[in-house]
Amino acid sequence: MPELRKDPVVGRWVIIATERVRRPTDFPRRVVPARTARCPFCPGHEDETPPEVLAYRDPPDAPDATGWRVRVVPNKFPALRIEGELDRRGEGVYDLMNGIGAHEVVIESPEHSGGLETLPPPAVAEVLRAYRARIADLKRDARLRSVLVFKNHGAEAGATVDHPHSQLIATPVVPLVVADELHQSRAYHDYRERCLFCDIVRQETAERVRIVAESERIVAFAPFAARVPFETWVLPRPHAAAFEQIADDVLSDLATVLGDVLGRMRRTLDDPPYNLVLHSAPFGVGESPSYHWHVEILPKLTGLAGFELGSGFHINPVPPEDAARLLRETASA
Amino acid sequence: MPELRKDPVVGRWVIIATERVRRPTDFPRRVVPARTARCPFCPGHEDETPPEVLAYRDPPDAPDATGWRVRVVPNKFPALRIEGELDRRGEGVYDLMNGIGAHEVVIESPEHSGGLETLPPPAVAEVLRAYRARIADLKRDARLRSVLVFKNHGAEAGATVDHPHSQLIATPVVPLVVADELHQSRAYHDYRERCLFCDIVRQETAERVRIVAESERIVAFAPFAARVPFETWVLPRPHAAAFEQIADDVLSDLATVLGDVLGRMRRTLDDPPYNLVLHSAPFGVGESPSYHWHVEILPKLTGLAGFELGSGFHINPVPPEDAARLLRETASA
Repeated sequence: MPELRKDPVVGRWVIIATERVRRPTDFPRRVVPARTARCPFCPGHEDETPPEVLAYRDPPDAPDATGWRVRVVPNKFPALRIEGELDRRGEGVYDLMNGIGAHEVVIESPEHSGGLETLPPPAVAEVLRAYRARIADLKRDARLRSVLVFKNHGAEAGATVDHPHSQLIATPVVPLVVADELHQSRAYHDYRERCLFCDIVRQETAERVRIVAESERIVAFAPFAARVPFETWVLPRPHAAAFEQIADDVLSDLATVLGDVLGRMRRTLDDPPYNLVLHSAPFGVGESPSYHWHVEILPKLTGLAGFELGSGFHINPVPPEDAARLLRETASA
Repeated sequence: MPELRKDPVVGRWVIIATERVRRPTDFPRRVVPARTARCPFCPGHEDETPPEVLAYRDPPDAPDATGWRVRVVPNKFPALRIEGELDRRGEGVYDLMNGIGAHEVVIESPEHSGGLETLPPPAVAEVLRAYRARIADLKRDARLRSVLVFKNHGAEAGATVDHPHSQLIATPVVPLVVADELHQSRAYHDYRERCLFCDIVRQETAERVRIVAESERIVAFAPFAARVPFETWVLPRPHAAAFEQIADDVLSDLATVLGDVLGRMRRTLDDPPYNLVLHSAPFGVGESPSYHWHVEILPKLTGLAGFELGSGFHINPVPPEDAARLLRETASA
């Protein structure tokens, strides 16, 4: 059973594997398996993954058969385990608990090449529906407090299977960055009685210098303090804290804008590696007036200089206004 | 003039370059120059760096001549500029200021190969003395609030010049991770009236399962919630918030233990790429009873899966107890 341990100095939770390591060369360099000729995510290989927890396919809807459009399976090498008790406890100054949680893979398409960047909006919408359905289902587990949905595209961004997929990690704790966001946006709301993110959307859509793409219900822009070149955030215009509450019309708009943004990145930056993370309100927070779900997309064009991890300090050589302009000027698909 | 911009959502300051980028291929992939056959940090090439701000050499002590053992020069491609006014200002919901600060390079040795990992303790001590002297000097600039000293070793960790060197960035703001540490350790002190770091040192030296190396005044251990395999922290046993106040005897001990730890990593892990960051109290904080300076060493053995940047959440496949044991078992130099 892995452990969730809290760093007492910054309040950061870390998943620590507990399989013993006897030699330095023993430890797994990756949590996921090495590339193989036979893709475990392609149709016809459904028996190479754990049994599916969700799939969208036309009838006859037989689980783990072919014919699916989107398929969600437990990660074969999960960072957290779904069975067991949390057993929150202390060890002197430290806090820890059992590594309870869910770690799932969302296979975005039966096609081996091309994911969110190239799929048509209705297919992107089905991937987003799968996120929504899985979060809503995991929310019913009283042990869990938060879900991170993320996508690593390209080997440099951490992908170890080429077949387009996203991942979902549900945890009994709140990730540090989301906790920082909750804290800051609550302080802003206490002072101004307005949502910080709604104010950001208002300012970005008025100034327009950092807008990348938009639609009636969704806006995408380069954040004012972008950490990396071409970082882009995607937010709903109407206030909404929890992604799993997203209405169908907003979801449909999100699919269009998200696909558009990722397509523009692909064409402008020559299919860059990127990380995408969905930040949504932790389960206990509910329909908060101060938090606002959003998607952060971080292309990996420059190797991080390294000290960012130790300091939280970033140096970005590309002004977000220029990045947004270049993405806007790229022809739409 | 670069800008310092604050992300309003998590309070993270980012240095944003302001040179215009016209095409996606225009932007510098690195802040530092490409490798060249001629090393700008080797003796005899002193004219290829900006004039030195500090050097340790035997008399005759002529600036920018050869004969130095440690040499500190301004970064030729600085992320921040030392001249000008801060001009703190707002733009609607956003905060920013001019990119004022210092960005210096500490050349650790005249030898082109081998740095802190291989230098004898007296030579490591001279590098640490240079850190201390530069921080103390920069502290006199009333515009500056914090200094980050860091070292990227190996190309995978972001080093673009092979010659062993550390860097120093002095900023008019406090980096996010240090701000988080200050906040948490102050809350702990408010509650317990003890320093969190002193309590950690007490527990680690009592339990001994995560100790990597130690001496009378310094202890090195794998942190309980290590983010990456073989992460190691180095702390002074006596309480001390500001590194620049370090006494000579503690500095000498630190040189011995730090060199020992880095040497053990080099031998155990085959000269791994790593990032080292010194966390010291911001200038305004002074001799805080709740903050405690420390060095964090993060070997880069696994590519980060990528979502860490977007979530602050880490998965570490090596229990820190095993990492510490493997480093302890490695023969001392």
